[in-house]
Amino acid sequence: MQLVECVPNFSEGRRQIVIDAIRRAAETVPDVTVLDVHSDGVHNRTVLTFVGSPAAAAEAAFRCTERAAALIDMREQRGEHPRIGATDVIPFVPVWGVDMNDCVALANQLGERVGLELQIPVYLYAEAARRPERRWLPTVRKGQYEGLQELIRTEPDRAPDFGPARLGPAGATAIGARPFLVAYNVNLACADLQLARDIARTVRESGGGLPAVQARGMATSEPDVVQVSLNLLDTSVTPLHVVFGEIRSLARANGVEIQDSEVVGLLPLDVLLATTVQHVKAFELRREHILEARLLAALSERREAPPA
Amino acid sequence: MQLVECVPNFSEGRRQIVIDAIRRAAETVPDVTVLDVHSDGVHNRTVLTFVGSPAAAAEAAFRCTERAAALIDMREQRGEHPRIGATDVIPFVPVWGVDMNDCVALANQLGERVGLELQIPVYLYAEAARRPERRWLPTVRKGQYEGLQELIRTEPDRAPDFGPARLGPAGATAIGARPFLVAYNVNLACADLQLARDIARTVRESGGGLPAVQARGMATSEPDVVQVSLNLLDTSVTPLHVVFGEIRSLARANGVEIQDSEVVGLLPLDVLLATTVQHVKAFELRREHILEARLLAALSERREAPPA
Repeated sequence: MQLVECVPNFSEGRRQIVIDAIRRAAETVPDVTVLDVHSDGVHNRTVLTFVGSPAAAAEAAFRCTERAAALIDMREQRGEHPRIGATDVIPFVPVWGVDMNDCVALANQLGERVGLELQIPVYLYAEAARRPERRWLPTVRKGQYEGLQELIRTEPDRAPDFGPARLGPAGATAIGARPFLVAYNVNLACADLQLARDIARTVRESGGGLPAVQARGMATSEPDVVQVSLNLLDTSVTPLHVVFGEIRSLARANGVEIQDSEVVGLLPLDVLLATTVQHVKAFELRREHILEARLLAALSERREAPPA
Repeated sequence: MQLVECVPNFSEGRRQIVIDAIRRAAETVPDVTVLDVHSDGVHNRTVLTFVGSPAAAAEAAFRCTERAAALIDMREQRGEHPRIGATDVIPFVPVWGVDMNDCVALANQLGERVGLELQIPVYLYAEAARRPERRWLPTVRKGQYEGLQELIRTEPDRAPDFGPARLGPAGATAIGARPFLVAYNVNLACADLQLARDIARTVRESGGGLPAVQARGMATSEPDVVQVSLNLLDTSVTPLHVVFGEIRSLARANGVEIQDSEVVGLLPLDVLLATTVQHVKAFELRREHILEARLLAALSERREAPPA
């Protein structure tokens, strides 16, 4: 079995009828399973999460992009979240039986098709980036929808990788490949927002901290709890339990304990495995020893077998 | 989807042709997946692990038992491991979408069929036991194959739950239901076998220690490492990380550190989850947040859907 996850972000988080139509466009592809739909009205943005075979996931992503282009007019779209198009970003994530190279190839195929058939400018980003600066999504989004047309005209560096060099009402789309992203919050049992901010600055990669970690300090709805809110961009590089341990050390150095931590969205089995290996020193424990991983492998083999 | 695990133990660990034949008997049932076959020549015993729907697992267990009865003659069988029959024990384990009651019902159905169709005496044990003393397998095995016929004759308490009150060359079989069993070893960085034995005695349930834990102290192949070898009979009652923590405390009280730990066989996702919840204080983390658990649910739903 080959499975990729696809997590397209659409610039619509308010009109439920539009959100539903985009979701249904993905579901029309056999062999695609929608795992999650998360909409935010303030951001005016919807994050759709689905899995499927590489070909099925690419087809579903194409149909969603086509639908979003028909239903979202960027000339009128307003929201808190930065974006360049109706379908703002489409990342492919290796999940089962595929590697990053497969997902980069998939991003290229989909990019070419979206550029050609939908006439939408496409930027390859993250692991699929052809220019080093496009590995980082904020660079690709610079100027946003409103400024991008002028930037394409004046800066050769901003030419899309596929599609026309002009923006229609659907704007542009970033398509790429990346590891599974874990959204993770660590709550500190104190009211000191500055401490959360300081710790965030220390642990994040951009501050010279842990690789593949983004972090910021935030208040929470509880007055006596502050939060370090993180994106773990590659838990094979910096495991979740390492991030937790580092934040605990920094907090304790200031006499503060960790209240609890929380995962937003989905967490891969490998994160649980790495944490367990560390906690009980089970250094030989592998994915193949986990009952559910065996079941998944067995079920998927059976699905691929010709009917008896 | 409904999945049970079945882990029958056969009194043959030497003749590969017999082991293969028993395995193949299970594999002839569509919808059954053999996960593991483990044979031990000294014990003269084979442990077969397979999963399937409840009906498929029961059918596979029946076919294995029939095959073993034809190929293993208990009048000639010798080995280190205690046993009462060619198919010594058949436990059903709830894995997915079934509970313990379903597995108890399955043990009853299979027990009745084995007793009637194969004319083998059957004892219901563990969660399926109808007499309290039969919850514990060693009670059921008391006297072993060689002594059981006489015990059935003289002690009314030893009457089988199904089948004839006399033993043929296939002996008797214990059939039951139990939680997933985790075989777990904790290695201590010291040469003090007595310490391993003392810790084992302290942590095991029979010594007034942790519930649902069996333990014994053992030497290892490394002279400077001793082992506490455990069976965790129900990790929802005593989680693996609690066992580890308890042994670590007891070892440290004697100035000894844990070298490492190891899982023998398969480990359920829930054990990883409980360990991670504890380690990073992610108190809200549930099975539904784990990507692979979602995939398994989605794949199994799709298998059950009528073809489009």
